[in-house]
Amino acid sequence: MYVLWNDQIVQRDEVKLDIEDRGYQYGDGLYEVVRVYNGHLFMFQEHLNRLWTGAEKIKLHLPFTKEELATNLKKLVALEGIQEGKLYFQVTRGIDSPRNHALPDPTKVSGVLTANIIPYERPVEKQLKGIKVGVVPDTRWLHCDIKSLSLLGNVLALENARSRGFDDAVLVRDGKVTEASAANFWLVKDDVIYTHPDGNLILPGITKKKIIQLATDLGIPVKEKAFNEEELFSADECFISGSLIELIPVVQIEDQVVGTGQLGEWTKKIQEAYIASVNSICKD
Amino acid sequence: MYVLWNDQIVQRDEVKLDIEDRGYQYGDGLYEVVRVYNGHLFMFQEHLNRLWTGAEKIKLHLPFTKEELATNLKKLVALEGIQEGKLYFQVTRGIDSPRNHALPDPTKVSGVLTANIIPYERPVEKQLKGIKVGVVPDTRWLHCDIKSLSLLGNVLALENARSRGFDDAVLVRDGKVTEASAANFWLVKDDVIYTHPDGNLILPGITKKKIIQLATDLGIPVKEKAFNEEELFSADECFISGSLIELIPVVQIEDQVVGTGQLGEWTKKIQEAYIASVNSICKD
Repeated sequence: MYVLWNDQIVQRDEVKLDIEDRGYQYGDGLYEVVRVYNGHLFMFQEHLNRLWTGAEKIKLHLPFTKEELATNLKKLVALEGIQEGKLYFQVTRGIDSPRNHALPDPTKVSGVLTANIIPYERPVEKQLKGIKVGVVPDTRWLHCDIKSLSLLGNVLALENARSRGFDDAVLVRDGKVTEASAANFWLVKDDVIYTHPDGNLILPGITKKKIIQLATDLGIPVKEKAFNEEELFSADECFISGSLIELIPVVQIEDQVVGTGQLGEWTKKIQEAYIASVNSICKD
Repeated sequence: MYVLWNDQIVQRDEVKLDIEDRGYQYGDGLYEVVRVYNGHLFMFQEHLNRLWTGAEKIKLHLPFTKEELATNLKKLVALEGIQEGKLYFQVTRGIDSPRNHALPDPTKVSGVLTANIIPYERPVEKQLKGIKVGVVPDTRWLHCDIKSLSLLGNVLALENARSRGFDDAVLVRDGKVTEASAANFWLVKDDVIYTHPDGNLILPGITKKKIIQLATDLGIPVKEKAFNEEELFSADECFISGSLIELIPVVQIEDQVVGTGQLGEWTKKIQEAYIASVNSICKD
């Protein structure tokens, strides 16, 4: 496996990470996952923009321009020759020695980038059959808009659900549904689609934005409005969304079936529109 | 610098960390910092116990016994020959490839330990003159009892305070003072000492526990009871505590002087008792 390590593409075992990399000691960094379709990096500019926005929020000085990063990531994808894949990249605040909570001087400590791509196929079966989710208290921090490496809260939320036999968690904070453990969460009720508004409680999903646009084009009303647990359990349809999974229906919440217990009409319409959009954008 | 890497002591540049170490990609791990006085690891058993408690909470399988870890850490300290130092160690959930939020099978993925020790001197000037803190909203996750590597919340809280000219942050959640950015927070009012009770909102400090014991021995009443911002600003004395800093008085909060603006009587008494206890335990 090749890895883009800062501005160099090297073999995986040539990457030299330091024990005092702030990514390793503080989860102090940001990441993105980009779906590659037919060799194309889908919604790539949006992912880069989100990385830059996050970097501003946490005062992380990115040691490259968007153009430089884009060029190098595209080189990595081309070198691996992967047509259908997931591209992962993360930037930490860099190596700061001796370890110290305070932010280092960005003129002395430079961000560390690592990126790799592996093959990935559309999860067709899950997209058709759906998943079961467990309700889990959202105990994460209050900056969930930042796609940071400090992910233990997300990991434990997923584990809470998985240990009880569910595929994912639907997170609830102060009575309101926020998102899944690593995906946006959606509800369909009386031909209107609801999802939590952007802000500090959820990740501003790139797929979320795309879905809002597609649904609007299809004439389906979308409301970015938080819903509570009672509304969750009375939904006609539910689904989750993300760059890799696209749209996956949620057919069971705790021990209760959602709607018909099958892929719902509106979820299917948007799934199809999403895939059509992907195919049209990534065709050549 | 030598590093204890799993069960081997190697030179720092011989440590080989993987890009898919869950510590690097998820902040998925735990850490401890132990103060070494006169070559002795102070309150060492308590630090080991806290690591094991944290591991249970996050379902991290520690690939060694307490005795094995203690033996290896002591070897490291002896090899470095540091008499006054800070020993840092962390354990991540290990290398999990391909990257996946779900917990890996602990029989296949084994925790990765890294540890190092550097010289450290008691911060005498700060202990005498005190520090200034800024009030910062506590936006961290709701498992602050876990000493995890997902520390970006703590890092950003400190930066919030430092960027406004303060030395540290005093964190406030739902109107109550929780702790400092990486230390427990204390208030003295009418000859009673207050600090936040243990639970999910603060770290169960080892120095905190020691202070409660010392104060009790001195006949000073201690109450583990949360206090609000109004009480904070009307304190006679305030201080923060931690394994490295011991007790440091807080002499200013935002633009308001605390008490006389100098090291307070009760803080000084407990500081002295703490140092006497250290000297007595670590004398040979």
